Amino acid sequence: METGETPLERIRLDLAYDGTGFTGWARQPGLRTVQGVLEDALATVFRRQGDPPRLVVAGRTDVGVHATGQVAHVDLTPEQFAHLANAGQLAKRVNGIAGLSSDVRVRRAAIAPPGFDARFGALWRRYEYRIADHPDAQDPRRRSHTLWHPAPLDEQAMHDAAQSLLGLHDFAAFCRPREGATTIRTLQAFEWSRDADGVLVARLQADAFCHSMVRALVGACVGAASEARAILDAAVRTSAFKVMPAKGLTLVEVGYPPDAELAARAEQTRGKRSLPDRAPID
Amino acid sequence: METGETPLERIRLDLAYDGTGFTGWARQPGLRTVQGVLEDALATVFRRQGDPPRLVVAGRTDVGVHATGQVAHVDLTPEQFAHLANAGQLAKRVNGIAGLSSDVRVRRAAIAPPGFDARFGALWRRYEYRIADHPDAQDPRRRSHTLWHPAPLDEQAMHDAAQSLLGLHDFAAFCRPREGATTIRTLQAFEWSRDADGVLVARLQADAFCHSMVRALVGACVGAASEARAILDAAVRTSAFKVMPAKGLTLVEVGYPPDAELAARAEQTRGKRSLPDRAPID
Repeated sequence: METGETPLERIRLDLAYDGTGFTGWARQPGLRTVQGVLEDALATVFRRQGDPPRLVVAGRTDVGVHATGQVAHVDLTPEQFAHLANAGQLAKRVNGIAGLSSDVRVRRAAIAPPGFDARFGALWRRYEYRIADHPDAQDPRRRSHTLWHPAPLDEQAMHDAAQSLLGLHDFAAFCRPREGATTIRTLQAFEWSRDADGVLVARLQADAFCHSMVRALVGACVGAASEARAILDAAVRTSAFKVMPAKGLTLVEVGYPPDAELAARAEQTRGKRSLPDRAPID
Repeated sequence: METGETPLERIRLDLAYDGTGFTGWARQPGLRTVQGVLEDALATVFRRQGDPPRLVVAGRTDVGVHATGQVAHVDLTPEQFAHLANAGQLAKRVNGIAGLSSDVRVRRAAIAPPGFDARFGALWRRYEYRIADHPDAQDPRRRSHTLWHPAPLDEQAMHDAAQSLLGLHDFAAFCRPREGATTIRTLQAFEWSRDADGVLVARLQADAFCHSMVRALVGACVGAASEARAILDAAVRTSAFKVMPAKGLTLVEVGYPPDAELAARAEQTRGKRSLPDRAPID
């Protein structure tokens, strides 16, 4: 899209959504997706300013996965940018589009710092997975984003299992295989704790996650905590654990380097991931 | 229903629900209500054990109001009670009824202590009201039970207003008038604070609330904080504030006296409220 001739204005968008009513992030014909709904809203905002801008996103969340800290960017032509009083107004305009349901929200819109790329500039992604494993923690108001588990789980065993998986590994055992794509990742954080309501919450952070990796890691802790490290070491897919349902999963934050290092980071990531990366990455 | 001859077994039920899909608590012909859904489930559980048991509830929540700490009781005949392995099983049976949606949940079922009455034995009710007044706090996952307010609110002014209303007063200015019903209540707690996500949360506790009283008190803080006390003192309904939407409101806890004082408390309350009390009490 970018021609290198037109000075496009890059806008960073911070997004939140309830994934229940979406067929994931990525636009698909005939399906309601987060990207589709937001790009349609952008097309409405700029209906008289040429080609509608397209979104580039940090984490292409899968069907039913939620986000509170998703990050995307759009490149606006000078004409489109001039149509706004300021960058922040884009959030209000998109949120105000008739028919944009409250299950997706632009929380902030701001001019991106030079070199910023929502996808290739990201240093890490952080996810949470919520499990209510006893009736007191099963809050019907929060059922859209919490898995209800029928029996009490051993929080300490799950936490120990999670800790045993930290570091740089080949996560092939927890990734849906894709030809030519690496499954080597650095799992920077993975811990389990209970929140004030007694809900078991996993917090995971990695440079990037491959498809269904978070839900596989969570599933290994729930179903086979004592074997989690052995599963990792075997480096092959196994039936010892289940990939958990999407509903408990939320993308909560995407980390970027300081502004001065943005361009270098994006170049470096682009170089490493030579193959097109079309599948959702949880 | 109670004949005084049959030794009925009283079961205390602790309930949680998302009020979005319900036309309030109280059973109404042709409408989906919390009481209706639960009593229908009880009728299924005891379909071969005579007349289905009826629920008596602590707080008859209004259309769209949620609960995490609702309390009810049912009286089971010996035949019905014998149909259960134990009282706790009633929660599993009701929750397991095919078609009982996950927007209502029996969190606990247990034999009630002697003299327990979910409605007349209650000492106090506690409610929360959630307002997300800036985009960062507007979490689409929690939109069913959080009001989104378009502009930042003054938390301190709201808290001061709330504090000015504490105590024993005639709350006529905040109650929908009902003939013969008193509007004198003791507001035991009313405070505003922000939770970890930046959501403004009001916590209110009173011996009882009259219809729409919580939402009127919250509305006075949002719209006319500086006048809240004057509104109370005027003791007449005014247009200076709006009754807030039900969606932000959750009944979070009902307080009962120690077991030894239960029967005396229920007798005392029954005596005070001579008129039938049919309207929802928030």
